[in-house]
This record gives sequence, C-alpha cells and structure tokens, in this order.
Amino acid sequence: MKKKRIVIALGHSALGTTLPKQQEAAKRTAKAVAEFITRDCQVVITHSNGPQVGMIHLAMSELARDFPEYTRTPMSVCSAMSQGYIGYDLQGAIRSELIGRGIYKPVSTILTQVSVDPYDEAFYRPTKKIGRLLTEEEAEEEEKMGNHVTKVDGGYRRVVATPKPQDILEIDAIRALLDADQVVIACGGGGIPVLPLDHQLKGASAVIEKDIAAGHLADQVDADMLIILTGTEKVCLNYGKENEQALDYLSASDARKYMDAGQFEEGTMLPKIRAAVDFIGDSAIRKCLIAKLDPKKQILAGNTGTMIGK
Amino acid sequence: MKKKRIVIALGHSALGTTLPKQQEAAKRTAKAVAEFITRDCQVVITHSNGPQVGMIHLAMSELARDFPEYTRTPMSVCSAMSQGYIGYDLQGAIRSELIGRGIYKPVSTILTQVSVDPYDEAFYRPTKKIGRLLTEEEAEEEEKMGNHVTKVDGGYRRVVATPKPQDILEIDAIRALLDADQVVIACGGGGIPVLPLDHQLKGASAVIEKDIAAGHLADQVDADMLIILTGTEKVCLNYGKENEQALDYLSASDARKYMDAGQFEEGTMLPKIRAAVDFIGDSAIRKCLIAKLDPKKQILAGNTGTMIGK
Repeated sequence: MKKKRIVIALGHSALGTTLPKQQEAAKRTAKAVAEFITRDCQVVITHSNGPQVGMIHLAMSELARDFPEYTRTPMSVCSAMSQGYIGYDLQGAIRSELIGRGIYKPVSTILTQVSVDPYDEAFYRPTKKIGRLLTEEEAEEEEKMGNHVTKVDGGYRRVVATPKPQDILEIDAIRALLDADQVVIACGGGGIPVLPLDHQLKGASAVIEKDIAAGHLADQVDADMLIILTGTEKVCLNYGKENEQALDYLSASDARKYMDAGQFEEGTMLPKIRAAVDFIGDSAIRKCLIAKLDPKKQILAGNTGTMIGK
Repeated sequence: MKKKRIVIALGHSALGTTLPKQQEAAKRTAKAVAEFITRDCQVVITHSNGPQVGMIHLAMSELARDFPEYTRTPMSVCSAMSQGYIGYDLQGAIRSELIGRGIYKPVSTILTQVSVDPYDEAFYRPTKKIGRLLTEEEAEEEEKMGNHVTKVDGGYRRVVATPKPQDILEIDAIRALLDADQVVIACGGGGIPVLPLDHQLKGASAVIEKDIAAGHLADQVDADMLIILTGTEKVCLNYGKENEQALDYLSASDARKYMDAGQFEEGTMLPKIRAAVDFIGDSAIRKCLIAKLDPKKQILAGNTGTMIGK
C-alpha cells in the first residue's frame, strides 16, 4: 500500500525569531513532526522565514554599509542563507527526536528555488516590509538603487513584492528523497525567488507567499494532506467580531464562498485558505488541516484545528 | 553498466570571494562540471567556503554588536548559511549550463552536517583565523566568551579549530539522489561541524578541513574518482625551490612517502594529498586528480593536473 504523504508547513510561531528561540522552537516542532513519521507517513516540511531573512538582510546590508569591500546582498541570496540557517536547526532537531524514539530515518534539507512570473502584478505594488527603519536620506538612497520604500511611523522601510510561486525547480530531488522514504525539508520561506530568463535564473527582489508555495509543493508531490501549523486554533468566520465562529470542518466549496465574501484576512488567513482550496481542487482524497502547534494537543487525534476537504 | 561516480571538490579559486565574483566563478566552474555530466558520470560537487563563511561571520558578529536584540551567531550556523549561499549560486549555474547543452537533469544542494570528535587534538590548538582584525579590548572580550584569539600584525584575530571529519550525517540523502541519477552539491565548506552528544547534535566552534571531508565523501558514495580543483597546475616535489618538479602521475605509496618527508605544505597541498591517499586506500580502481580549474584546458583530456592512483 502506498504510504500517506503529508506536507507540513510551519509558521513563525513554530520557529521562533532569535537564534536561541529558534533552537527551542525547532525542538518542540520536531516532536509534532515526529508524530507523523512514527505513524509511517512520508513527510515534507516547509517553513516560513520572515524574522530570519529579516535578520540576515539587516546584517548583510549593514556589512555593505560599514565595509566597502563587500557589495549588497540581494534578497534571493538572503533567502538562500535563511534556508541554510533554518534547515540546519530543523533537520538536527527532527533527527534527534526520531533517534530518541528509536527511528533511524534520514532527514535533510534541499535548497529550493521557486520561479516567479516577472509580470506578476505583485511587482507593481510591493508591500512586504523588510529590514530596519530607514532615515529619509537612506530611503532616497534605496530608491536610487531601484528599490522601493514606504513611509512608516518614524521613518521609512524597504518593501519588496510578494509574487505567487510558479515552478519548484528542485521538485525532482524532493520527490526522489520521498520515494526513498526519507524526511525532506524544502521550499523554506516559500523558496528562493528566481526569475527564469532564457535558461538562466535571476534572483528576484521578492518574498514568495509561503502558504501558497506550501500548497503548490503538496500538489507537486501528490500529498494526501497539507497541514498548516500556525498561531491560531481554528479557522474562524467573523474573526475578532462578536459573532465569531470557530470551524471544525470546512468544505472547499464553502471556503471559496467565504473567501469571495472577504471573511479571511489578507496576509494571514487568506493565503492559507487559498493554498488549501488550490491544493484540494476537486480531489475527494486531499485534505488540509489548519491548526495551532500545541504540544499538549495531539494533532493526529483530530481534536484540534480546522479540517478542509472536498 | 554502473555509471562512473565522481566527486568534484572546488577550491577558493573556483568560487571567487565577493558576491559578483562568486556568480562569475560559478558560471566558469559550471562549464567544467558539465563536462563530466555530459559524459554520463554521476557527479557530487563539494566546495570550500572560506571567504564566504568569513563574510557571513563578520556580518553576523557586527549585527550582534550593533543591535542588542540579536545574539551572536555560532560558526556552525554561519557555515549552514554559507552552504545556502554558495549552493544556490552553484546549483543555478550548473542547471543553466546543462540546459544550454540540452541536458535536463536535476541539480540540488543537500545541507550537510559532518560530525567531529570532541577530543580531536585540533580543539586544543585552534589555528584557523576567522573574522576581521580585533583590538586588544575586543580580543579580551572574545576570550571571556570562551573563544580563542591569536596576535597578528596590527592586532588580534579570532581562531577556531580545524578538526577532522567523522560522519557525514546526510549521506543517505546524497546517495539517494545519486542513485536517482541527479547532480548533488553537498558537504559545502567541509560540512557544518557538529558534535554528537547522546542522540543530539551540538554545533562545534570549528571549520572542518574541506579536502579531507571531500575524500571522505568520495569514499562514502563509493566514487571512482575524486577531482580536487585548486589554484596550482600540478602537485610538485620541492615546491618553490630551484629543483621543483611537477608530477603528472603519483602513486599512493609514493605520496605517503613524500608526505612523511614533509614535501607538502600544511593547510594547502598536504590535506589534498592526504585526502587522495585515504580515499584510494588499496583500491586499484579509485583515482584522484589534483588540477587547476582552467577553462582553456580539458580536464578530461588528461593533459592537466596530477593523477594519483594505486
């Protein structure tokens, strides 16, 4: 019998922000991930990288400012570095957790590039804030270099586009490791954003929407389930209002209706629901669970989160 | 028939130092690597990371100094970031070069940890200089944190140990991709140095000797040939002296004798010869080529470098 394939997408809360917090968070997350592996599922893990890529981008920008022998580091390179940084902590933590349970299974990270469309409308209105607060002078300097900035409280910040993912360039490597029954970490931070240019790839000044990338990854490895671990317990209707209603189950067709009705917040719940709906399509098998990573609750027992199915 | 397996180890000259130089170097290197893939060899690429990990370490140290909300970044994490950074450029360049030749073959990077022995004598005499020049005050601060420094012209620099590699922890992933006839980049910078502690892994404050790691990797994937691309044309006896003699061929037993006689410089040629000798062992099949990456010379035509065999 074919083993169940699961893609687990880890949000910020599953990873922490600073170095020591990330190590702690990775250990907690590893326990949840190991639950699935123990039940003989084939698992791909993907993760966000917001605070990490922010830290790296800040460090590399300050370096180029202080040491003129170094050039600026593009967002795509910062994203590649963040995959190394996070993947290292995750693969170490998952490996240890598995060995502690007597399971000897290879765990590794595939550095993943994801192509984006140069004509994606997101490039015309970059909205994702990155890096530290800039002075007016620094903001002008950024704009001269072709970067975008936005006015915020107390100054300016750089903004980059959040285009939709197209192709996962290392998908064959991910599939080969899954076929060999190994645990794979891939598409970190939504993937390193690249623009295809003839047969070359050019790093894009962008951050890919990671939930959409996770859904795409789940589709491409033909997963049975996509699990999005986030900071909220369940998907809610009328979120934050008096008549808020937490959902245990949501059908893909209802999800589409609620999306159209503007029920889900852009940048947080909306991309998760969109990823779920895109992944499920009209499959009667594929499911998506959106849940909070809570070590006290068994995700697999089915008593947490919102399950989305056909 | 079993395909030939080749491990190619890229030195500093094959990778450049700064960001734009690395991109250029990666393109040149990709041409050499593609030669082997075109001839239907299974190829693993490994690479040095000295200037890159130096840059990242400097950036992260300055960040922790200037922004107190960030902690210091250990060498192991800097090494993981450098694997992301270099792997991204290399896998992109090799992929493009292959597509340009009409070859559609997956190329990916496996984030690789390599364990080191906590009792490796290298930990008692750290020699590898990293980071920028430090003032006396900064040097004292480093020592208070348990780090080692050494006096150099104009001040101090931090030094870390260069222990020998033990286990390549992601070897099963590397093998699975090779078995699937894919191109793999692995063990960058000699691997992320980790200390096994029960079933946990702890990042080590060290830089692994990359040539030895490359030989170890070649052994572990049962390669037919290890190719070390470096800055010098050939292995020489009496290097730099009047009676210097460049070698076309060297037997492993002669190599051992010359090593004992102190013919090869520590830190440059010695680890390459040691890697070659260790890899070849008493195999009549395994060979090691030490050569300069020169786009004008065909490595495969056999008219460049020094071939070491039993």
